[in-house]
Amino acid sequence: MPAKPVIVLDPHPRRVADILRPERLAELRDAAELVVHDDGAGPMPDERLDGLLPDATLMLGQGAMPAARLDRAARLRGIINVETNFLPNIDYEECFRRGIHVLTPGSAFAPVVAETALGMAIDLARGITDADRRFRDGAERWGLDGNEGCFSLRGAPVGIVGYGDLGRALHRLLQPFGCDVAVHDPWLPSYLLRREGMEPLPLDALLRRSRVVFVFAGVSTENRHFLGADQFALMQRGSVFLLMSRAAVVDFPAMLQQAETGHLRIGTDVFPEEPVAADDPLRRLPNLLLSAHRAGAMPEALLDIGDQAVADALLMLQGLPPVVCRRAQKETVARARSAPISRS
Amino acid sequence: MPAKPVIVLDPHPRRVADILRPERLAELRDAAELVVHDDGAGPMPDERLDGLLPDATLMLGQGAMPAARLDRAARLRGIINVETNFLPNIDYEECFRRGIHVLTPGSAFAPVVAETALGMAIDLARGITDADRRFRDGAERWGLDGNEGCFSLRGAPVGIVGYGDLGRALHRLLQPFGCDVAVHDPWLPSYLLRREGMEPLPLDALLRRSRVVFVFAGVSTENRHFLGADQFALMQRGSVFLLMSRAAVVDFPAMLQQAETGHLRIGTDVFPEEPVAADDPLRRLPNLLLSAHRAGAMPEALLDIGDQAVADALLMLQGLPPVVCRRAQKETVARARSAPISRS
Amino acid sequence: MPAKPVIVLDPHPRRVADILRPERLAELRDAAELVVHDDGAGPMPDERLDGLLPDATLMLGQGAMPAARLDRAARLRGIINVETNFLPNIDYEECFRRGIHVLTPGSAFAPVVAETALGMAIDLARGITDADRRFRDGAERWGLDGNEGCFSLRGAPVGIVGYGDLGRALHRLLQPFGCDVAVHDPWLPSYLLRREGMEPLPLDALLRRSRVVFVFAGVSTENRHFLGADQFALMQRGSVFLLMSRAAVVDFPAMLQQAETGHLRIGTDVFPEEPVAADDPLRRLPNLLLSAHRAGAMPEALLDIGDQAVADALLMLQGLPPVVCRRAQKETVARARSAPISRS
Amino acid sequence: MPAKPVIVLDPHPRRVADILRPERLAELRDAAELVVHDDGAGPMPDERLDGLLPDATLMLGQGAMPAARLDRAARLRGIINVETNFLPNIDYEECFRRGIHVLTPGSAFAPVVAETALGMAIDLARGITDADRRFRDGAERWGLDGNEGCFSLRGAPVGIVGYGDLGRALHRLLQPFGCDVAVHDPWLPSYLLRREGMEPLPLDALLRRSRVVFVFAGVSTENRHFLGADQFALMQRGSVFLLMSRAAVVDFPAMLQQAETGHLRIGTDVFPEEPVAADDPLRRLPNLLLSAHRAGAMPEALLDIGDQAVADALLMLQGLPPVVCRRAQKETVARARSAPISRS
Repeated sequence: MPAKPVIVLDPHPRRVADILRPERLAELRDAAELVVHDDGAGPMPDERLDGLLPDATLMLGQGAMPAARLDRAARLRGIINVETNFLPNIDYEECFRRGIHVLTPGSAFAPVVAETALGMAIDLARGITDADRRFRDGAERWGLDGNEGCFSLRGAPVGIVGYGDLGRALHRLLQPFGCDVAVHDPWLPSYLLRREGMEPLPLDALLRRSRVVFVFAGVSTENRHFLGADQFALMQRGSVFLLMSRAAVVDFPAMLQQAETGHLRIGTDVFPEEPVAADDPLRRLPNLLLSAHRAGAMPEALLDIGDQAVADALLMLQGLPPVVCRRAQKETVARARSAPISRS
Repeated sequence: MPAKPVIVLDPHPRRVADILRPERLAELRDAAELVVHDDGAGPMPDERLDGLLPDATLMLGQGAMPAARLDRAARLRGIINVETNFLPNIDYEECFRRGIHVLTPGSAFAPVVAETALGMAIDLARGITDADRRFRDGAERWGLDGNEGCFSLRGAPVGIVGYGDLGRALHRLLQPFGCDVAVHDPWLPSYLLRREGMEPLPLDALLRRSRVVFVFAGVSTENRHFLGADQFALMQRGSVFLLMSRAAVVDFPAMLQQAETGHLRIGTDVFPEEPVAADDPLRRLPNLLLSAHRAGAMPEALLDIGDQAVADALLMLQGLPPVVCRRAQKETVARARSAPISRS
Repeated sequence: MPAKPVIVLDPHPRRVADILRPERLAELRDAAELVVHDDGAGPMPDERLDGLLPDATLMLGQGAMPAARLDRAARLRGIINVETNFLPNIDYEECFRRGIHVLTPGSAFAPVVAETALGMAIDLARGITDADRRFRDGAERWGLDGNEGCFSLRGAPVGIVGYGDLGRALHRLLQPFGCDVAVHDPWLPSYLLRREGMEPLPLDALLRRSRVVFVFAGVSTENRHFLGADQFALMQRGSVFLLMSRAAVVDFPAMLQQAETGHLRIGTDVFPEEPVAADDPLRRLPNLLLSAHRAGAMPEALLDIGDQAVADALLMLQGLPPVVCRRAQKETVARARSAPISRS
Repeated sequence: MPAKPVIVLDPHPRRVADILRPERLAELRDAAELVVHDDGAGPMPDERLDGLLPDATLMLGQGAMPAARLDRAARLRGIINVETNFLPNIDYEECFRRGIHVLTPGSAFAPVVAETALGMAIDLARGITDADRRFRDGAERWGLDGNEGCFSLRGAPVGIVGYGDLGRALHRLLQPFGCDVAVHDPWLPSYLLRREGMEPLPLDALLRRSRVVFVFAGVSTENRHFLGADQFALMQRGSVFLLMSRAAVVDFPAMLQQAETGHLRIGTDVFPEEPVAADDPLRRLPNLLLSAHRAGAMPEALLDIGDQAVADALLMLQGLPPVVCRRAQKETVARARSAPISRS
C-alpha cells in the first residue's frame, strides 16, 4: 500500500510538457506518487495501467475505463480527460454510481477561441481580410466606398448558438460593443440566460434577427446538420455566420453556398475533413474567411488544461469536490459525439 | 432683424443627407431659421455667406472665417466644423476673444475606428488574414502549427500613442481582454491617465514593453515622423504596430521595412499618398494588413457628426455651453496640421 | 401509472405563494402532475408522501428521504430543497449512487444579501448610521470633523472569507470601487480565485491587510468559532468586520468586544440566538451595526427560490442535467451544519 | 523679470497641507517660482497680491480678480479655485476675453460623495439605519417582517437630477445593480445622456417613475426650490429621495414633511442653515437619514483637489490646455449661486 495517493498521468495524444508547466508538475509530485507515461508513441500500455489501477486515486488522461477496470480501481476518485472531449471509452454510468468524477478542462480553449471569434466577426462585418485582398489585387476602394456592404458590430443584434464556456467567454468580450445578444441553447433554461443578460430565443427567431451568428454548439446525437439551407435562408442578406465548434452541426455544402451567392459572409474554423483537400473549390470562394482549426490551438490554452486539471486534482486529493473542470453529466455524456483529436 | 436666430448650414465637402438624419434637420428648422447650401459642387459662394453673416448665430461648415468676417458676424456664437478637422482658415484667436465656440464632432469616428483597430489587432496577433491567404494559396498549416508566431491579445501589454477620443473608445473595447495598457500622450498629465486605469509612459518605454502598439496621434507641427526606424527597433520582434491616424506621424518607408523584414506585424489605415499607386510595392509585402482609409468611413459615423453638431447647436441657441463636440483650444489649435478631406 | 411525471411540492416551512409566482406554478402544472401540500401547519403527512413515492419524479421540499424511502422512489430524479440548506434528513450517499440530484437554490439570496453587505460596509466605513444617531442626539460633528476615523471603500483592501454565491454577488457590486480583493476559502483553488480577479490568501494574511472583511462562510463540522480574539487582533484598528452568514463561525462574545473597545467596527446580520434577548447588552454597544437577520429576507429572494427550482425541475423532466441550483456534493454535504429555518 | 514663471498659491480658507501632498508641492516648486500664503488667518493681503500680479502666470486660490487686477496681470494664464466653487469675485468675462482659464477641481469630491450617496440609498431602501435604531430600542422585527416596506436597489428605476461629476461617479457605482437610470439635467442634451446609457426625462416623469431619486443639482439663479410639495407628490409612496448637493434646490420644510408623513424616505447631507439648531425638530423625524455635510469632506478628496490643480497647472506652464479641472463657462458661470465654504 503506497504511503501517498497515486496519480496516473498518461496524456497521450498530448505531451506532458505541452500541458503542464514545471510548477504544476511539481505540485502533483508534492501531493502524490506520480506515475507518468509520456513517450509520445502511444498511451500507457494496458498491462502497466492495469497494474496501477488498485492504487490509483486519480487518472489524468483519456485511457479506456470500462467497468472491468473500474472494478479494480477501488480508490479511484477522479478521471480528468486532458484531451478535453468526453470519449465513449469510459463506463460513465459506473463512474457515477461509484462517485468517481469524470472531468475535462474544456474551458481552457474558451479565451483564445472567443478572441478569434470576435476577431473574425469584426473582420467579416467590417470586411478587413477582404479589403486587404482587394488592396493586394490593386482593386481596393477608398473610404466610404470601401465599406459598402459593411456594418459595425457595435449595437448589432448578435446570436449565439450553444452557450457554454465559449459562448460565455465571447459574451464577455462583446460587453463593450453594446450588442443585443440572443442565445439559442436547448439545454439551458431561459432563467439562466436572462440572468446573464441575454435573450433566449428559438433558433428560427435568432437567425432572423441577428446580423452576426456565432455557432459554438457541440455535436450531439441529435443535432447533426441542424443548420442547413432552410436556416441560412432565414438570415438577413449580408449577415455574418461564424462556425467555431464542429463542422457536423451544419450542412457544410449549404453553408458554403451562402458565401458563393453572397447571401452571407461566412467564417469557419472547422471543416468536415481536415486537412482540406488541396483542390477543394472552397479555397477560392468569396465571402468566406478560412481558418485551419487554429482558433483554440494556442500554447497557453494547452497549459491552461494542465492548470485546471491540477487545481481539481489537488482538491480531490484533499477530499474536496472539483470546482474548475467541467463534469461529465449522466444525462448528456452519452449524447456527445465529438471525434478525438489527433493532436491540436 | 430675424424673428429666429439664423443657422448657416454649409457642409461642403460633405452633403447634408450624409450627416443629418431627417429628424435632426427638423430640430434645427424648429429652433432656428436654417439657411442651407448643399449643391455638392462647392461651398456657399462668398457673397451669399457674407450677406448672412450679420444675422448668423451659428455656422455648421468649414468656410473661411478670417477676422474681417468675424467683425461682421456680431451675433455669432459658434462654428461647428462638420468635416472634423480644425482647418487654418479661421482666425481662432479672434474667435476666442469674442467667445465664439469653434467645435468639431471629432469623436463621431471613434467607435468605428476603435472597432477596426481592435479587429486589426486581433487579426495581426492571431494571424487571421494571413492564415486565410495561406489557405487560399494551399499553404495553410493546421492547429498549433498554424499559430506559430501568434500571440493572444488577452493579458498582453498594449501601448496607445495619442489618447483622445479614439484611444478612449479603444480602451473601452479592450477592457474584457485584461490587457495592461500604457499610454504615451505628451498633452495629457499622468494624473488623468492613471485615473482612467492606464500607465503613462515615455514613448521609448512604451515601445519596449508593448506587444501591440496603437497609434492614434494626430499630426502637429512637432510630431512629424516621430515614429521611425529607431523607435521600431525598440519593439519586440513579432509585435504588432497599428497606424490608425495619420501617415505623417511615422517614417512610412521605415515602417514598411519592419513588415518586410518580419520584425513587426504592421496594420495601417492611412498612407502618405492616397490612393496608393497601382504599382506600389507595398501591395506585395508580407506581415502587412492594408486598409484603404476605411476605419472610420462608415455611414453611422457621418450621421453621428450631425447628431453631435445638432445637440451642441441647440444648447448654444439656448444660451448654454456646448458639451458634446470637441472645442478648438487656443494653446493647441495652431499646432494641428491635418489635411482637409476630399470626402470620406 | 400516471400519464405525466409526478412532482411533489411540499415546501413547508415555506408557503407555495411565497416562493412560486403564478406563472411558475403554471409551468409545473403544464409539465407534470403536480401534487401540492401547502396548509401551513406542517409538512405533508408521512403516509401521503409514502403513497406518492413510487410515482414521484421530482420532489420540491425538505421532507426526510432515508434509504428506505429512496428504495420506494424508483422514478425519482431530483430533490430540490426550497428552504435552501442541505439538511441531514436525506441519505445523500444513496441519492448519489442512484443518480438523484439533490439541489438547493441557495444563490437566491445572494443579490439582496450582497446589497445589504455593501450597504453595511459603506455605512461602517463612512459612519452613516453612527452619524445619524449622533445627529439625533444633538452631538453631530460637521464636515471633516464628522468623518474622523472614517475611510472610503474606494480602493480599500477588502477581504472575503468564504467565496460562494454571496461572495460572487458582492464581488460584482464592488467592481466599480476598485478595491483590492483578497479571498480566503479553503475549498477553492487559487487558480479559480485568480481567474476571477482575486488574490487567494491564508486567513491571517487576509485579516492583516484588509480594511473591510466580509464573512460569508457557512458553518461546517470544522470551522466553528474559527474567527476569535486572536484573529480579530490581527486586523488593523478601525477596520470593518461584517458577519453575514452564520453566528457559529465566530466567537461571538470576542467579536462584540472588538466593537466595545473600538478596535473594530462590526456589522452583523446573525446572532447565536435569535431573537436576541430584550436585555442583551449588545443592544447598547458602540461601533456595532445591528441587523435582525434581514439581509436576505426579501420577497424577491423567496420568489427567486421558486424561479430557480422550476428552471431546474423542467430541465430534469426533459432528461437534462440541472444547471441553476447548487448541487449537494458527496465530499462536502456531510460537513455542512446549518440549522433549519423557522420561516424567513 | 523672473527666471521662472510665478505661481501664487493662496488657498484660504483651505490650508496648503490639506490639499497638497508634499510631492505635489515639490512639482510646483520645480516648475515655477512658487509664492505661498498659508497662515490660516486669512487670504493673502491685497498689497502683497497686487505686487505679485505682473509676474504671476498662475493663481491657485480664490482671491478677488476684478478687471483692474486682471489688467495688471499680463502674464496670467490660469486661475484655479481650490475651494471648488466659482465665486462672483472674478470678472469672468474679462478672463475669457484674455484667454485666462478659470478652473476648479470640482470632481475631487465626486468619488466620496457618490460612495456616501450609494450607501445612503441602500440604507434607506433596505432600512439599515432604521433597523439598527429599532434593535437598540428593543423593537426590532426579524427576517421578512423586518423588511416590510423595504425594496432592493437592484433593478430599481433610479433618477438622477443634475448630471455632472457627482452623477457620473454615482452612475459608475450603480452599474452592477442593473438599475434603469433616468436623468434630468436641463443643461445637457439627450444625445449625451443616451450615449452614456441613461434615459433623459423631464423632471415630472423622472419623479413619477423612480424609486430612488438622487439630487446633485447645484444652485443656480433659476432653480431655487424647484423641488417642492408638488414634485414630492409625484413620487411613489415609500420611495427614496436623497439630497446630496445644496439645500436651496429644495423646499426644505416640504421635504421634511414627506419624511414625517411617511410618504418618502429622505436622506440629506445638507441643510438650509448649518449647523442645524440644537432644538430643530428635524432631529426627531422618522424616515429621515441625517448627515452633517459629511459626504464629501474626506481628506483624500481635499488632496485630490491639489492633485488636479497641479496636473493642470503643469500643463498650462507648458503652454498646453488644462484637461483635468472643470472650466468656468461664459454661459453658465454667472448663473451659479453657491455660497463659499467656511472650511470643509
